[in-house]
Amino acid sequence: MKVIKFGGSSLADSDQIKKVIKIVSSDPQRKCVVVSAPGKRNPADTKVTDLLIRYANQAIEHNDFTNTQAAIIKRYQEIAEGFNLTTENFTPIKQAVIDLPKKEYPNDKYLMAAFKAHGEKLNAQLIAKVFTTLGIPARYLDPADAGMVVTNVPDDAQILPESYNRIAKWKLTTEILVVPGFFAYNTEGDICTFSRGGSDITGAVMARGLDADLYENFTDVDAIFSANPNVVESPHAIAHMTFREMRELSYAGFSVFHDEALIPAIQGNISVNVRNTNNPDAPGTMISSKIEPDKNYPVRGISASKNFCGLYISKYLLNKEVGFTRKILNVLYKNGVSYEHMPSGIDDITIIMDESNLTPEIERSIMTELQEAIHPDEMHIIHNYAIVMVVGEGMRNTVGLMARATQSLANAGVTLQMINQGASELSIMFGVSQDDADKAVQALHKEFFKLG
Amino acid sequence: MKVIKFGGSSLADSDQIKKVIKIVSSDPQRKCVVVSAPGKRNPADTKVTDLLIRYANQAIEHNDFTNTQAAIIKRYQEIAEGFNLTTENFTPIKQAVIDLPKKEYPNDKYLMAAFKAHGEKLNAQLIAKVFTTLGIPARYLDPADAGMVVTNVPDDAQILPESYNRIAKWKLTTEILVVPGFFAYNTEGDICTFSRGGSDITGAVMARGLDADLYENFTDVDAIFSANPNVVESPHAIAHMTFREMRELSYAGFSVFHDEALIPAIQGNISVNVRNTNNPDAPGTMISSKIEPDKNYPVRGISASKNFCGLYISKYLLNKEVGFTRKILNVLYKNGVSYEHMPSGIDDITIIMDESNLTPEIERSIMTELQEAIHPDEMHIIHNYAIVMVVGEGMRNTVGLMARATQSLANAGVTLQMINQGASELSIMFGVSQDDADKAVQALHKEFFKLG
Repeated sequence: MKVIKFGGSSLADSDQIKKVIKIVSSDPQRKCVVVSAPGKRNPADTKVTDLLIRYANQAIEHNDFTNTQAAIIKRYQEIAEGFNLTTENFTPIKQAVIDLPKKEYPNDKYLMAAFKAHGEKLNAQLIAKVFTTLGIPARYLDPADAGMVVTNVPDDAQILPESYNRIAKWKLTTEILVVPGFFAYNTEGDICTFSRGGSDITGAVMARGLDADLYENFTDVDAIFSANPNVVESPHAIAHMTFREMRELSYAGFSVFHDEALIPAIQGNISVNVRNTNNPDAPGTMISSKIEPDKNYPVRGISASKNFCGLYISKYLLNKEVGFTRKILNVLYKNGVSYEHMPSGIDDITIIMDESNLTPEIERSIMTELQEAIHPDEMHIIHNYAIVMVVGEGMRNTVGLMARATQSLANAGVTLQMINQGASELSIMFGVSQDDADKAVQALHKEFFKLG
Repeated sequence: MKVIKFGGSSLADSDQIKKVIKIVSSDPQRKCVVVSAPGKRNPADTKVTDLLIRYANQAIEHNDFTNTQAAIIKRYQEIAEGFNLTTENFTPIKQAVIDLPKKEYPNDKYLMAAFKAHGEKLNAQLIAKVFTTLGIPARYLDPADAGMVVTNVPDDAQILPESYNRIAKWKLTTEILVVPGFFAYNTEGDICTFSRGGSDITGAVMARGLDADLYENFTDVDAIFSANPNVVESPHAIAHMTFREMRELSYAGFSVFHDEALIPAIQGNISVNVRNTNNPDAPGTMISSKIEPDKNYPVRGISASKNFCGLYISKYLLNKEVGFTRKILNVLYKNGVSYEHMPSGIDDITIIMDESNLTPEIERSIMTELQEAIHPDEMHIIHNYAIVMVVGEGMRNTVGLMARATQSLANAGVTLQMINQGASELSIMFGVSQDDADKAVQALHKEFFKLG
């Protein structure tokens, strides 16, 4: 059997959902459908999840939410009307939206989680009814009934391992199971969501629990590309890649498939097929544990993320000071900032961090405390830092690849602020200024994909 | 005025000391002479310091030290005889050697420090007497009288900053000051030595305290070379380099000038001139704070050290675990092991350590504790790890240098296990297997010095 997950743009309106039904119906293996909340119908549209966030905030602040509530109901109503659903079928959906602010929540974080989760929950209920209305045996399967239990973090829950054996009981279902993505319940029965985009996680969890033959992830692109199509002209569609390659590429910007969703897929060794709802004949991108390398293309993809910053610290004979790094990490930890990488010279160290962690206040606090803790000779923050990743399993045994990479960057006039290549040899990481990031991706892509 | 320091091979016997006297006498600026203990007279010889260590161990273990004691006395006696010193002048030296085991020491570590320090102490006393015998006004200046005070670590003392103002009082000396290198006293008056080779430190401390115009460091090579002459055929003699370049190169094997000796030189902005006692007309290598870069040679030198190992750890979504690195560092700290570098991929980290830190027992303990603390997916030690450094201030603004370096390594068939280049851009660090280290140095040297 296959688990098949549809993203928000695949479920934005009844026309899109018709495509979904056709796709699901075309393969009797597609027994478990995981759905997102309705997404944007056009670029100017608002996602239902964003409407629900607005709704929640208005409820928390006791502001008037009439219009927001109505807008949310209207989105589901249009879908119901598109399939001529009976009033009886639609009324519970409408009532659930209206009831949201009337319920009790442990605190506002759980309120927010519950509001957001209803984007998926009501959509799954609605789509299950659409299936049965069309004569296709289907049922809404709530995460609670599925057996999913998560950690008690309302906006970044993690699946608990006992979930999998419970989910396995649904393996022999004859009906199509329509499961809402993005959320489940903690042991107290409160709704907790995964991190944003977490419907991919629900799909992967169901796929592992059901021991699916394939996890199909339908979205709105034909494939995962070898580089961002907004940056590189006609990048390669990746036919096949490994979990590790996906993981490395998603670290710096490849966002088609959710990072955390890879874990259950890897654990269950379930291949993932990323495909396009709007072009279901395209084979998409297959992600699995192992594939044969292609000698002509040692590199699988090139990604870039501009959301980093660096903290440069130098001190003479730094590495003779035992515990120097521990002191630095303690200061970061105290300020709630985690680091990403820590390339070091002999007497200097650069702490690469997620820029979004660093408010001006936290930055000041860190600098003051570090000054006191380690008395550096020099210390400054490097803003506008970007990380460019060159990723490919085939790089491991290809001598001269670093030379090609750095030569192409040099030819493009890109200044390297950092290079980081550890023992895994699966990727090379370059630190460049944000201004150079696109240029770097273009140069590297040209170098490693020019044979195509 | 100039401070001039002579290494052990420059003071190995009376013939060598005659060269020293000629050098000192040839420039009236040379007012402060710092001396090492007598070194090897030929490759098969034993350094006086090593004889003293043997003597100390025999004293500690209450073994017969008659022969060792005699051998030490003989070394000084031969020098004394070479200059026809009177018995009156030599007797106190001989007596000092005999008295060493009879004195009281706080513990065996201080005993060892005091024994070792007498290699320099007695040599300085002897050479001061040689000077005066030859009619050159000179005096032995004990570190205590000079005003040097060090931290209370018997075998790795650090100079205390109050020393410098005290030393400054000797600035107007008319006699030549003969100062023993390698040791000073803690505030209790016990002898503590610097780390091995620490006579360079004494010279630098004296140079800073006296605000010398130049610190001349006489040894037995014509210059510092751009690579190890045992590895590379006819490397370049470096005419001029910066303190930072020296520091980076010495990290991975350039041992002509002691690492820690750079600190007082940098602090006092005293240029250091490394020269050859056996070829005093050669200009040697000048080390100073700043020099004009040479566009043809962006790289100043290439060094390699084979004494490293790596600990590779991988775990899926590693960098989502807050405090992961802190946990690793805590385990290393508990086991008394410090790390050198920590290049990281997305889900893996390689901890580069000094191999000599890692006994099989400590290795087992670290692995067991890490297994428990972080539950890695994969973890293994990479023995036979070497670090190759390419160093040069001129690299900072030279685009394409990394490409040249990696291309030349690729052409030589060297597999890169790690690349580390931080924000300083003064050096690139390559991790390679020990077997590849020499090949890597040869390839890089050929690439960056072929214009010569």
